[in-house]
This record gives sequence, C-alpha cells and structure tokens, in this order.
Amino acid sequence: MSDILAQYRIPAEPYYRPVADEVTLFEAAYAAKMPLMLKGPTGCGKTRFVEHMAWWLGKPLVTVACNEDMTASDLVGRFLLDASGTRWQDGPLAFAARHGAICYLDEVVEARQDTTVVIHPLTDKRRALPLEKKGEFLRAHPDFHLVISYNPGYQSLMKDLKQSTKQRFGALDFHYPAHAVESEIVADEAKIDVATADKLVAIAERSRNLKGHGLDEGLSTRMLIHAGELIARGVAPLAACRVALVRPITDDPDMRDALDAAVATFF
Amino acid sequence: MSDILAQYRIPAEPYYRPVADEVTLFEAAYAAKMPLMLKGPTGCGKTRFVEHMAWWLGKPLVTVACNEDMTASDLVGRFLLDASGTRWQDGPLAFAARHGAICYLDEVVEARQDTTVVIHPLTDKRRALPLEKKGEFLRAHPDFHLVISYNPGYQSLMKDLKQSTKQRFGALDFHYPAHAVESEIVADEAKIDVATADKLVAIAERSRNLKGHGLDEGLSTRMLIHAGELIARGVAPLAACRVALVRPITDDPDMRDALDAAVATFF
Amino acid sequence: MSDILAQYRIPAEPYYRPVADEVTLFEAAYAAKMPLMLKGPTGCGKTRFVEHMAWWLGKPLVTVACNEDMTASDLVGRFLLDASGTRWQDGPLAFAARHGAICYLDEVVEARQDTTVVIHPLTDKRRALPLEKKGEFLRAHPDFHLVISYNPGYQSLMKDLKQSTKQRFGALDFHYPAHAVESEIVADEAKIDVATADKLVAIAERSRNLKGHGLDEGLSTRMLIHAGELIARGVAPLAACRVALVRPITDDPDMRDALDAAVATFF
Amino acid sequence: MSDILAQYRIPAEPYYRPVADEVTLFEAAYAAKMPLMLKGPTGCGKTRFVEHMAWWLGKPLVTVACNEDMTASDLVGRFLLDASGTRWQDGPLAFAARHGAICYLDEVVEARQDTTVVIHPLTDKRRALPLEKKGEFLRAHPDFHLVISYNPGYQSLMKDLKQSTKQRFGALDFHYPAHAVESEIVADEAKIDVATADKLVAIAERSRNLKGHGLDEGLSTRMLIHAGELIARGVAPLAACRVALVRPITDDPDMRDALDAAVATFF
Amino acid sequence: MSDILAQYRIPAEPYYRPVADEVTLFEAAYAAKMPLMLKGPTGCGKTRFVEHMAWWLGKPLVTVACNEDMTASDLVGRFLLDASGTRWQDGPLAFAARHGAICYLDEVVEARQDTTVVIHPLTDKRRALPLEKKGEFLRAHPDFHLVISYNPGYQSLMKDLKQSTKQRFGALDFHYPAHAVESEIVADEAKIDVATADKLVAIAERSRNLKGHGLDEGLSTRMLIHAGELIARGVAPLAACRVALVRPITDDPDMRDALDAAVATFF
Amino acid sequence: MSDILAQYRIPAEPYYRPVADEVTLFEAAYAAKMPLMLKGPTGCGKTRFVEHMAWWLGKPLVTVACNEDMTASDLVGRFLLDASGTRWQDGPLAFAARHGAICYLDEVVEARQDTTVVIHPLTDKRRALPLEKKGEFLRAHPDFHLVISYNPGYQSLMKDLKQSTKQRFGALDFHYPAHAVESEIVADEAKIDVATADKLVAIAERSRNLKGHGLDEGLSTRMLIHAGELIARGVAPLAACRVALVRPITDDPDMRDALDAAVATFF
Repeated sequence: MSDILAQYRIPAEPYYRPVADEVTLFEAAYAAKMPLMLKGPTGCGKTRFVEHMAWWLGKPLVTVACNEDMTASDLVGRFLLDASGTRWQDGPLAFAARHGAICYLDEVVEARQDTTVVIHPLTDKRRALPLEKKGEFLRAHPDFHLVISYNPGYQSLMKDLKQSTKQRFGALDFHYPAHAVESEIVADEAKIDVATADKLVAIAERSRNLKGHGLDEGLSTRMLIHAGELIARGVAPLAACRVALVRPITDDPDMRDALDAAVATFF
Repeated sequence: MSDILAQYRIPAEPYYRPVADEVTLFEAAYAAKMPLMLKGPTGCGKTRFVEHMAWWLGKPLVTVACNEDMTASDLVGRFLLDASGTRWQDGPLAFAARHGAICYLDEVVEARQDTTVVIHPLTDKRRALPLEKKGEFLRAHPDFHLVISYNPGYQSLMKDLKQSTKQRFGALDFHYPAHAVESEIVADEAKIDVATADKLVAIAERSRNLKGHGLDEGLSTRMLIHAGELIARGVAPLAACRVALVRPITDDPDMRDALDAAVATFF
Repeated sequence: MSDILAQYRIPAEPYYRPVADEVTLFEAAYAAKMPLMLKGPTGCGKTRFVEHMAWWLGKPLVTVACNEDMTASDLVGRFLLDASGTRWQDGPLAFAARHGAICYLDEVVEARQDTTVVIHPLTDKRRALPLEKKGEFLRAHPDFHLVISYNPGYQSLMKDLKQSTKQRFGALDFHYPAHAVESEIVADEAKIDVATADKLVAIAERSRNLKGHGLDEGLSTRMLIHAGELIARGVAPLAACRVALVRPITDDPDMRDALDAAVATFF
Repeated sequence: MSDILAQYRIPAEPYYRPVADEVTLFEAAYAAKMPLMLKGPTGCGKTRFVEHMAWWLGKPLVTVACNEDMTASDLVGRFLLDASGTRWQDGPLAFAARHGAICYLDEVVEARQDTTVVIHPLTDKRRALPLEKKGEFLRAHPDFHLVISYNPGYQSLMKDLKQSTKQRFGALDFHYPAHAVESEIVADEAKIDVATADKLVAIAERSRNLKGHGLDEGLSTRMLIHAGELIARGVAPLAACRVALVRPITDDPDMRDALDAAVATFF
Repeated sequence: MSDILAQYRIPAEPYYRPVADEVTLFEAAYAAKMPLMLKGPTGCGKTRFVEHMAWWLGKPLVTVACNEDMTASDLVGRFLLDASGTRWQDGPLAFAARHGAICYLDEVVEARQDTTVVIHPLTDKRRALPLEKKGEFLRAHPDFHLVISYNPGYQSLMKDLKQSTKQRFGALDFHYPAHAVESEIVADEAKIDVATADKLVAIAERSRNLKGHGLDEGLSTRMLIHAGELIARGVAPLAACRVALVRPITDDPDMRDALDAAVATFF
Repeated sequence: MSDILAQYRIPAEPYYRPVADEVTLFEAAYAAKMPLMLKGPTGCGKTRFVEHMAWWLGKPLVTVACNEDMTASDLVGRFLLDASGTRWQDGPLAFAARHGAICYLDEVVEARQDTTVVIHPLTDKRRALPLEKKGEFLRAHPDFHLVISYNPGYQSLMKDLKQSTKQRFGALDFHYPAHAVESEIVADEAKIDVATADKLVAIAERSRNLKGHGLDEGLSTRMLIHAGELIARGVAPLAACRVALVRPITDDPDMRDALDAAVATFF
C-alpha cells in the first residue's frame, strides 16, 4: 500500500458510540462490496461513523463534501497543463478506486443529480470507473468501498437521488442517540460533567419536538458539544446556550422565545 | 484487431438468463446493422444483456453512463494540449466507431436531448461520424454497433428522445424475469439456496405491485442479490432486507411499513 | 479542386426515387444560387435527396447535424492552440464556403436560433462569411450552396426559424412517397419481395393516420426498411415489426395495441 | 489609409433605388457624427442601403450579424495565445473605430441587451472605446461611423433596446418600396421583364396585407428576386412562386391556400 | 504621478452648466472620501458632470460602462498568459485605486448585483481592494474616488442596488436643466441660434410630460443637440426632428403622432 | 509566523465600542475553536467588530466579500499557468487556514449556497480543507478561525444558509448601538460635536422605525458618519443630510418627504 494514502488514514480511534447493529452491518456490506447510503438528520453522527469504520477496518478514507457546482470531472479527474504537456490528475473518486480507499460522498444530493451517474459503474458487478478523457478503464482496487450520506428531511422535489442510483446502495438509518448515550457523548467530548450535559440534551430534545412546527431541524449533538465547550471555558450556561444553540438555529422571534424558555427551564 | 481494445473485451461469459427471443433479435439487428434501443425498468438486466451479447458476439463493449452535463465533445472527442501542440483524443463513441466496438449509451435520455443528435449519422446508411473539429469524416468500422437504453417509466415531458432519434432504432422491451427464473438468478449470484431466493423474489413482487401507488419503482433483481449476499455472510434475513431492500427504496413511513410487513411475512 | 474534398464526395449514386419536380427545382436553385430549405416529416427522404443531388451535380457534400449546443464557432471555425502558437481551423460552414461544397444543415431549428444568423451573409448577394476572429472576409466559392432541413410538425413556439432567416431561402416540401413508390423503395433497400414491402407500407399508412391522435409522427420509410431487413434475415414478420416498428415509436399501451393490431392484420 | 481595409471596401456601386430623403439624411448624420439606427421590416433594403452609402462615401464597411451569443469581447476584441505570449485581436467594432470604417451592426436587438452597452462611449462626445483588457483607451478615427438595424415588428418584451441606447441614435424608417419602384428593382436584379416583375410585386402586396392576420411578415423584395431568378432560368412561374415565395414564408395551410390563390390570380 | 494616467486625463474643460449646489457637494464628498451615487434620467448630464469635476479637480477619470455580463474580474483584473508565464492585468477599478484616479461606474445596476460587492472594501474605512487571485491587498491611493450612476426610473424588482451597497454612498439627484439653461446648452453645443434651441427644448418638455403615459423616457438633452446639429448642417427642422427625436424614441404610432404634432407646433 | 501575513495584520487599534458581552464570547469561541456567525443589519458594526477582535487577539485577518459568482475555487485556490507549468495559488480560505489567520466571509449568503459547503470540513473536528485539485489534505493552523456575517433581514426564500451549515457555527446578534453610544461613535469618527451627532442619531432612529413600512433598512451608523463628515467640512446640515442620508436610502417620494421632515425637525 503506497505512501500516497498516508494523509487519508485515520491516525487515532475516533470517538464513536454504537447505537444498534450498524457496525456489524457496515462490516458485512464492506465484505459483500455493497455500496452504502447513510440516512439521517444533520449532525447526528454519520460522518463520525464513517471515520470510525475506516479506522476500524484499517482503510484510508477520502471524504468529498458534495456541492451543486460539482461536475463529473471534479470526482473523476482532469488533465492539468504541465511544462511537458498535459498530466492526468485523479479526482477523489478515481483516487479512492485506484488505491483502495473508502470514498465518502457527504450530502450527495447536493451534487448535480446526473453527476452522481458517474458512480454507477463502480456500484455494480463491474466495479469500474471509465476515465473517458484519459482513455483508461479503471477497475476498482479490491479494498475500495463507496459510502454516501443523505438527509431525507431536506430533499425537495427538485433534489433527490434517482431510483437507478438508490437501487445500487444498501441503506442505514441514523437518528439522534438515546438520552443517556447522547449525554455521555457530550460530556466526553466537551469535557463537562454529565449533569450539565444531561441538561443540554434535554434542551435539544425539546427543540427536536419543534421540528416541522417552526424549526427545520432540531439541535444537533454537535451544537450541544459547542455549548458544552463554552461552559467548560467558563462562559455562563445561559450565554453559552444563547451563542451556541439558540441564535444559530433560528431567526424567528417566537422560536427564539420558545428555545430561550427551554434553556431557562434547565439552567 | 488492435490491443487498444483489450480492456473493453468481456473476459468471461457474464451470467445471463434469456427471457424470450431477445438474443436472436439482437443477433439479427447486429447483422442488419440496425441500432437498438433497450427499454425497461431500473435493474431488470439491460446492462447485463448487452455485456452478454458483446461476449457472445466476441466484440469489445464501450459503455457510457450518460448524464445531463454530457456534451457532444464528451462523446465525440476533443483536442488536448500537448508538449508538441494539440493532440486529438477520441471520445468513447468515436473510439467505438473507429475500432469496431459495440457502444452502449446507458440511460441515454439523461444526456442533453440534442447531444444525442450527434449519433444520427451513425444510425443511417452513412454509418459515419463527422469529427468536425478535427476535419475528419470517420466512417464506422463494419463491426461497430450502437445500443442505447431507456427507462420509459422515468421520462418526463422535459426529457424524452426526439422522434427523429427514436425512428433510427429498433427496440427491445425488458421486464423483470418470471418468478422461477428470477429466484434462480438471485440464488446463483448471491450464493444462497433457492428457497431463500424465492422468498426475496416474493417480496420484490409485492413491491412491484406498489409501483405508482407510493413507490416510483419496485425492488430490482440487483437489490435482491444485495440482500442475498448479506444473508450469505451471516446477516439475519430481517436485517439484510431492511438494509438492502426497504431502507434504500423509500423514506415514506407508510411504504416502509408495507414493505417491512412483506418482509416479515416471508421471513 | 483540392484533395481535401475527397472525403466529402458521394462515391456512388445514392438510391433516390424522385417524387415530383424536386430535382429540376433543386438544379434551378443551385444555378440561381438560391439557398434551399427542405421541409417534411422525419425519415421521408430529405437527407437522401440532398445526397442524391450532390452526386448528380458532382459536388462534395458537408452535412452538419445541428444541435442545441451548437455555437457560431462550431459552424464558422476557431483557433486551436498549436506548438507554434494558434492555428485557424475552419468549421464545416467555412470549409464548404471556401472550397465550394454543398453545405447541408440538418434539423437546423435544433441549432440556437441566433447561431443560424451567421449564415445570413452567405444567403444574400454578398455570399460571404466574415471570419471575425480571424479577421478574414471569406467570399464563398462559386460552387458553394447552402441547404437546410426543417420539420414543420416539430416546431414549438420556442423553436422556429426567424422570418429574416426563412425569407432567405427557397423551400421544397417533402412527404412520404406514394404507396407503390414506397413499396418499391422498401423492397429495393431491404432486399425483400414487393408483396412483403407492400404490407409494411400499409402498416405505415395506418400509423400515419394516427399522427396527432396519440402518435407524434407516423412510421417512416426508414423504419419500414429496418423491419424489412430483419425479415430478410429470417426474423418472423411479427417479431420484426414489433422490434423495428411498434416498440420504437411509442410507449403508450393503447397506441401499441392499435399498431400491433395493424401488424396482425397484414401478417 | 491602410491596406488592411481593402477587403472591407465595396468594389462596385451596389444597386440601390432611393425612396425618399434617406441619402441626404445619412450624409448629414455622417457629417454630424450622429450614429444611425435603420428601422424596418425584413428584406426591405436596409443592408443594401448601408452598402450603397459606404460606396457613395468611399468608406470601408464592417458588417456584423448580431446574435444572442455575442459577447462584448466578440465586438471589442480579445487576447489570442501566440508563440510569443498573447497577442491582441481587435474585434470588428474596435477594428472599424481604429481604422475609420463604417460599422454596421445588423439586427442589433439579437445581441445581448447589455452587450450593446459597450457601444455607448462610441456614441457620445467621447467617440472612444475603452479596451479595458488591453489597457487602451481607443479614440475613434474621424471617419468612423456607427449604424445599427432594428426590426420593430419583431421586438418582444424581452428583447428591445434600452432607452439609454436608443437615445444615442438618430433613426431612419424603411418600408417596402412603392409598386413601380419595386417592380423596377425586381426586374433589374432578376433579369426578367417588368410585366412579370409587376405580377410578383402584386402578389407581395397581397401578402403584406396579411401581416398580423396569419403572417408574421409579408413577402420581401429579396424573395421576389428569388422567384424572378427561377423564372429567368426557365422554371414555370407557378412552381417558381411556390418554391421561392409561398413555401418558405408559412406552414399554415390556410395561409398557403390564400397565397397560392394570389399567385394563381396573376400567373 | 505616472504617465500611464495621461490617456485618462480630461484634456480641456468640458462644457458643463451647474444647476444647483452639485459642484460644491461633489468637492466636499471628494475631500471627505465619501463615494458618490449620481441619480437621474437618461441623457440629463450625469456623465458630463463627472467629466467636468475630474477636469476641475485635476484628476484622471476612468469610466466603465457597466453591463450584465461584467464579472468581478472585469473590474478587478486577471492574469494573462505571457511568454514568461502569467502576468497580472489590473482591471479599471484596480487601476484607478492604485494610481489615484476617479473611477466612474456608469449604469451600475446593469452589472450583476453581486459583482458590485467587490467595491465594498473600497467604500468604507479600509479603502482597500483585495486582489485575491494575485494575493495582494491593494490600499487605495489617497486621490482615488468612486462615483456610480443610477437611473431610478429604470429599476425593476430584479435589478436594484443592495441596501448594503446603497448605504456606502452619498447621492446627488439630477434632472433635466431648466428651460433657459437647456436652450443655452443646446445652442452652444449644436452651434445653432437660441431661438431654434428654444423650440427644441419646448418639444422635449412636451415629450417629458408623456413619460409614463406611453413613453418610457422623455427626449434627452443629447437628442436635442443631435437635432440641432442636423439643422446646423442644413437639414430642414421637420426632417431633423423626425430623424433625431421622434423616430428613435418610439415605434408606437399614437406616440409618434403626438410627437410629430408637437414638432409641427413649433416649426 | 511568516512575512506573508504582514499585509493582513491590523496596524492600529480600530475604534470599537463594545455593546454587551460580545468581546468575551468571541474570545471564548476563539479558544474553543468554535466558528462564529455574526448576525445583524447593514452597517451596524459587524465588520468593525471583527477587525477589532483580530487586533485584540493579535491575529491577521483575511476578509472576503462574498458574491453570487464566487465559486469554490475562488475560496480554495486554483492552478495558474506558469512558465514552468502550473503553480498552485491558495485562495483566501486556504491561505488563512494554512497560515493561521482569522478568515471573515462577509455577507456569506450572497455566495452560492453550495459553495459554502467547502467550509464544512474546516468547521468540525477535522479542521481540514481538502484541496482536491492539488491532492493535498490541508489541516488548519491552530490559530485559524472562521467568522461569517449574515443579515437576517435580507434573506429571501431563495437565499439562506443550509441547516447543516448553520449548525456548525455559534452566533452573535448585532444591533444598532444605544442612542448615547451611537452619538459618541458618530461624534468621534466624524469629528463633530456630540450635540450635532445626537441630532443625526435621532434622525436615524426615526428612519429605523420606518423599516418594513416603506424602507428596507434604516439609516446606518456609517451613513450618519458620512453626514457628519460633510458637516465637519462646512456643508450645511440640511444639504449634508440630503446627500448622505435621504437621497441614498430611497427613491420613494413619500419616504423622502418623511425623512426630509425628520431632518427638518432636528436641524
């Protein structure tokens, strides 16, 4: 395995608290070379899970934050002009396929719907990526694995995966962790006591009940850790929750009042 | 025949289970140099059929996954900058026409409607591809054959082939295989017993009856193979069906319940 | 006349069966240097007619399949980067004007409406093409002639030729040939007996009556030849008509039934 | 005056038959350096008039057929890559301004509305064209003159000149010539007798009364000349009118009948 | 002060007739380094005023006619390819900021709304222009001043300056000059007697009352000068007004009649 | 710390008058490496606050005025063509991440929504920026900090930050300062007496009550300073308020009357 992969290896075990059978299922999908789709709300741990699995399987991880302007060339590669003419530069997907990394396409529905079509030949029996501009038919390394993430709450009519893409993937659902588990995660990551973390999780749970009733999303675990980190640095809990939880998530005065009240209930 | 085609040859006979007279008709179309259009739902075996026929006829196969950003140059070719000036690079269509491969344009309606116009001179008596930028009038190799795929269930008003394109092709309809045939395919590919494969096919058939009643597409043979592969690796059938069948195909809670119930009926 | 035109010459007399006075009128228009517009439905023989006339007049023919992404530069030419700087590459229109070929712009309404404006100075007294990027004012060769095709049944409000373009052309109408003529053409091209060809034409005529009543276009002569070629290769007539006539032209079940019934009536 | 202008000079007096005081007014506008806008229907002689005036004034003429894809760089110029780096290439507008030609922007509303803004500094006291990419502030040659054409019958709400552009130009209206004058023009140009030309003009006048009642434009003088030229080559008048007048201008069956009837009335 | 500015200096005092306190206010704004926005209808003298002030303050003037296709790079600059690699080329805004010129962005709302955002850092305390592609943080020369023009009558909902842009500028309103002043301007510029100029201004005033009642804009001072110049060259006043005033401003027959009647009243 | 940062350092303490606990919270967020979002109306001091904090923390500041045309490459960097091939040029975000500056993305919602996705990996535990084109996985310098600004009053349905972006930031609300504080700021910055500044603030407060009742935004502190600076240069207060306050903010006659009346009340 080449040095070129060094920077894509996960150096230390990332903190990850399994919720159900997702670790086992990921292992089986990896063994069966079945591409995987991770579904769930913002900030519930999908990215962390992939990092954990890459570390656990000892494979390098190439993460691509997908965006609307992403073209097929951004994933596959392109020719760059060089002193001696043109030089081929693998894109992240070709790089991962060639060298045997796990390729994680984060928020894949943000990409142009048809850009994702380039991943098709990598997701069936062929496991190949035709680099048409280069005239190479790249067969994927046996260690290559493709994982995509997807937030079902977001999808509009305009932005959804095509059926012919969906049917190429197995899918794992993700949710916010259970109360006790989430408190433990927040306490551990923000270096605060569990009692304070417990209050932050309670506030988050109230916000999640407001989803669809004025909030697009509830507070994520990541935001609770932010608030905890400010508290750990001596910021008063009310100010920390204002800056890290309430102000970022909404500009609606009624929603702000509701969330401020929830904060005041617990602190 | 040149070495350049080696990577486009099908190395071993791809598993394919004929359904009707499609093999004979493909052979006759190939002999008559009549371009072919394969119609049918996602994952019912169109791609596998083309691979089988390429193997059977002993011809190399150039597959292009069409997408919305595909320009005429992506199919035909372009000049690349080189140390000694510009160098012409055949696109996949020109490559196949020049060297005598079967060119398979997968999901052709995804391509810009008028990009497909470049295929017109290859589909009539001329069998030629004018490479206008290069100033070459490329006459197709006698072995060249053009095949396109097309999913009628998908087409919107905005995306359909033009009449003047359609009329240049013969068409073969594809459907899911009959129950016993599909069970055999799933058992064979996923290395599971036929009894289990039989249950998976039964679940798929229920899902296909839901098409148009909440599902855009039914479960494909490919998905059943995915589920079978997980079961073959020791994943419990209920978990395997959840990951490989139900979660990928829909986010609608009612549909999920209906499909989970179908899974529970058989396992 | 230069060798560069060799590949654009029609090597042998293309089969063409005159219908009315179109050959005489084309000759007069060519002599009068009046650009021509050929109007008519898909596959009724417009392209074949131009090839025939190019052969008859002994002039090379440059055919351009127009498409929506076609820019003025695609017709006129562009600078290419070369080892010694930039080199001008004539587009097909400039090539034909410079060297005295017939230039045939097929399905010209597919081109961007205003791309076609570049043809204006070639269609009036000036008979010139200003190559602005090159700083050359190219006067057309005396043998140059411009022909465009146009399918009136297709035009939407969004896509039509501008009046100032239309008024620069004479126009010839094309229709499907008369029954006996079309049978003769199909028999001759597909190498089948006239009785079989006659049946195919009868099926086509039924389909053409369905135009506007569920079909966008009727079956073209080209499709009948396709069906005939399959029959000539031993495919059963019913299967040949299914593959070459009915399946390509429509996905609508009722239309398919109607057309299948027409096929069954004659075979 | 440099040789570079040779190809833009009008070699011989173009046939032009003055209608009113347009020649005098053009001369005064040229002397006053007032840019001019020529308004009128398709094919009524605007282009011919500019060519005549360029010949009369002894000035070279640079004509640009405007189109929707035309960018400011297409008019002003750009850097081209050369063996020794980049080389500036004047666009037609900069070329005319630098060397003192008449620049005629034909169908200027076809250009992007704001592309035409680049002509503003050339149309006021400054008479200058800032070549921003080149860092040159080009002051126009004293002989430079700007003329644009414009078809008021065409303009949609989406495509019209901006007020701040219109107000920079004087305007001359053009119409079809009077009956006797138009007959004389047609006879002279098509080399037919005046009696035949007279009939063609009579047909055209009927068509012009149909404008707005089913026709977008009436038959132009240019079309009458086309018909005359076919007749001069021995084509029967009915066939010549069909090809050169009726078939090009409309696909509407009722309009075709009305125009065919008009033709039959006179021939 | 460098030679490079020579071509941007106003060589002679431009004719300008102050209307109110605009000269004093411009001087104070220049001294206070407060960017200015000039508001008013087409052709009322905004551009002339800026030229006058640049001459009066003895500063070079860089004028940019803004258009819809203008990108940030067009204002700021870009790298050009050179024999020895790439060379930075200041755009007009960077040029003016670096060398201390007045930069006048004419019809700034024509530019893409967000292109104008690049001017923000030049309009607050920073007075800087980050040339991000070049990696230079350009601090503006003390003499640099930014002036933009804006026609409030034009603005649609789609095209308006952002509040965060507007709030960075002081604003001066411009209107057509008072009758006597405008007559004096027209007489002086067109070299005609004041009595004739007086009639032209009276016609313009009638047209300005039609604004919003069939005319988008009234006749501008610039148009009156055009008419005067034709009269000074011996064109009859009725013909001069037809060409220079009525025909350019409208194609509506009723409006033309109304304006022709106004002309006939005075001449 | 390298010299390359010199031009991004704040040379002297920028005037900033703290309003609440925003300085303390920014310090805690910086220590906790929590990215920050500054929310508030135009011209209320967000930019000034960031400059103050950069000076206070002794860190260089890289400010990017976001705009609609900004692509991911504009933030991240690109390859430039050089004599010896291509050379990588860090964009401002990569530059700040690599060298440890505070990166301030001003009016971030103006950027394409998905361009902002490139900032995601910099805002979670990874604190990394994958430079995919370069094949570098850039880990952020420990001093790097990301700050964005956001004007909630502006956001349309089309332009808003994605939830998955918002949840990565803490947020600080900004408002106009209290009356006495704002008067002090205006007096201090414009070098006028507090009594005059007091009147200007009173006018601003009236305008802010009109927000949503005909005005999109109230008068900003920046505008008051502009007016004060004109007064300090001897411009009469009524003229100064007309130029610096009323004319820039609205073209609506009623609003202008209301604001002129407010000015007249105080001066």
